[in-house]
Amino acid sequence: MINADAVLHILAFVAYVAEAMTAALAAGRRTMDWVGVALLGGVTALGGGSLRDVLLGHYPLSWVERPYLLGLTGGAALLTIALARVVHHFRLMFLVLDAIGLVVFSILGCNVATALGEPVVIVVVAGMITGCAGGVLRDVLCNDVPLLFRSELYASVSVVTSVLYVGGHALGIAHAVVTLVAFAVGLTFRLLAIRFKWEMPKFVYDRDLH
Amino acid sequence: MINADAVLHILAFVAYVAEAMTAALAAGRRTMDWVGVALLGGVTALGGGSLRDVLLGHYPLSWVERPYLLGLTGGAALLTIALARVVHHFRLMFLVLDAIGLVVFSILGCNVATALGEPVVIVVVAGMITGCAGGVLRDVLCNDVPLLFRSELYASVSVVTSVLYVGGHALGIAHAVVTLVAFAVGLTFRLLAIRFKWEMPKFVYDRDLH
Amino acid sequence: MINADAVLHILAFVAYVAEAMTAALAAGRRTMDWVGVALLGGVTALGGGSLRDVLLGHYPLSWVERPYLLGLTGGAALLTIALARVVHHFRLMFLVLDAIGLVVFSILGCNVATALGEPVVIVVVAGMITGCAGGVLRDVLCNDVPLLFRSELYASVSVVTSVLYVGGHALGIAHAVVTLVAFAVGLTFRLLAIRFKWEMPKFVYDRDLH
Repeated sequence: MINADAVLHILAFVAYVAEAMTAALAAGRRTMDWVGVALLGGVTALGGGSLRDVLLGHYPLSWVERPYLLGLTGGAALLTIALARVVHHFRLMFLVLDAIGLVVFSILGCNVATALGEPVVIVVVAGMITGCAGGVLRDVLCNDVPLLFRSELYASVSVVTSVLYVGGHALGIAHAVVTLVAFAVGLTFRLLAIRFKWEMPKFVYDRDLH
Repeated sequence: MINADAVLHILAFVAYVAEAMTAALAAGRRTMDWVGVALLGGVTALGGGSLRDVLLGHYPLSWVERPYLLGLTGGAALLTIALARVVHHFRLMFLVLDAIGLVVFSILGCNVATALGEPVVIVVVAGMITGCAGGVLRDVLCNDVPLLFRSELYASVSVVTSVLYVGGHALGIAHAVVTLVAFAVGLTFRLLAIRFKWEMPKFVYDRDLH
Repeated sequence: MINADAVLHILAFVAYVAEAMTAALAAGRRTMDWVGVALLGGVTALGGGSLRDVLLGHYPLSWVERPYLLGLTGGAALLTIALARVVHHFRLMFLVLDAIGLVVFSILGCNVATALGEPVVIVVVAGMITGCAGGVLRDVLCNDVPLLFRSELYASVSVVTSVLYVGGHALGIAHAVVTLVAFAVGLTFRLLAIRFKWEMPKFVYDRDLH
């Protein structure tokens, strides 16, 4: 039988590269310089896992233990500059890779928190932080209101993936099956959400308290 | 005699709810979706204490130890959506609750740092971070210059409360008395500052160094 | 022979003051109040080292161990308000002090990470975070896209300084010599970059993926 964790760790590289490349495009929209592109790529791809580890007190952080991750993510961001003229032809591929990144990071975040013995609620939150917080850092550094808070079922996909993963284990289902189902459902959910432009309802409030 | 710490911990729930609800209104002003409202509520209400704990290396964080805090704050933020049409009728109540939150969080922050054996300056800083940093995170995520840096005696109230609390203990005054006085003076100071629109002087500088 | 580390630690005070004062000017451009000026000064001057320590799990943070740093940086920021009318006469001095700050913080960051036994890549990254992250926090709190990501050879200077420092030690060159060379080259590089307006190439991308 295929080792689910080995597949996940290979997909994690896809996730790192995908997040760094979409961050590079965001950097380009802000006319950042090449150093800024590499930094934003690294912060976005590694920021979610780093925030999770800092909040849980889980040291060393992944990129401190494996510094090649800095080269991988910074390099992927710089490569995006070279590919910028053709990137829009691969729009669909980018969206799929980014969705894989979201789902894989969520599952890996759950993995880490489970190994730390955290309660299930915190495991789900760790999955969500790992999947989503990198993009929040990217948007804050680009001086945008985080996309996560405004539109698309991004956080919801992460929560659904994490809940399936945690719930499946709680029910005693085999690890490989749980991982596969959480991955497949999360990815499908995300792609359907993009395809059909599913959105959460918005909250509009326009008064001042003061 | 009434147990001051027990009262404080009850008031802390008021503080969590008040901070989450004011954050929800800020989210509504940015047209965030429901997930964003819940996230911003949780980050605002729990962010100050989390930042303090990360900076002091004090693990586990409060919401990791008591995950129901995530439900409480996220739930309070979502409830605000339902109440949005009537919220402005309770404007005064909100301001009072928010002031209670500021003062209570400041005192609780001092408590934590004292228990860690930090020097008095750091205890006061811990009080200020706990009381104020959640609002800074809220404003950064809403893409605003933090209100804390711009207006109102918000940080000052937190410092006065914390100094009274630390100073009272240093003078050997009974814990319950110190807590009550710090709470009462801090709350009064904040409400007077709102009522009479007290502000710190502003610093205006409009040249570039480069 | 002069003790290189003693000189560095004296220059570190120059660096703290310089970073706090330039942050105060940024606060003035945003019309912050005096509390905001002091807070932004402290966060900018101490933020880089604090972020490095949090990411490496290195406790206690510098200002927790030496609380007078809070007074030094907050005080320097407040002093800037009094000096605001004459500050532009010292424009050149400010740029030199800021450059000294960047280089000294980078070297001190490398020092800390080396003492923690981190691999060389992480030592260089620690130097860069210590030198540059304070300015990123300043810009985020001022609601700007970080200058670090947009222009000037700021991060590059930090990396060159850190690489020289790490490389020199790897080659077994005497500590004092390595420190002096890294300092002199880094400072010269930064001042030349300002003088001749050296910039990294920019990445411009103006399509949306969605």
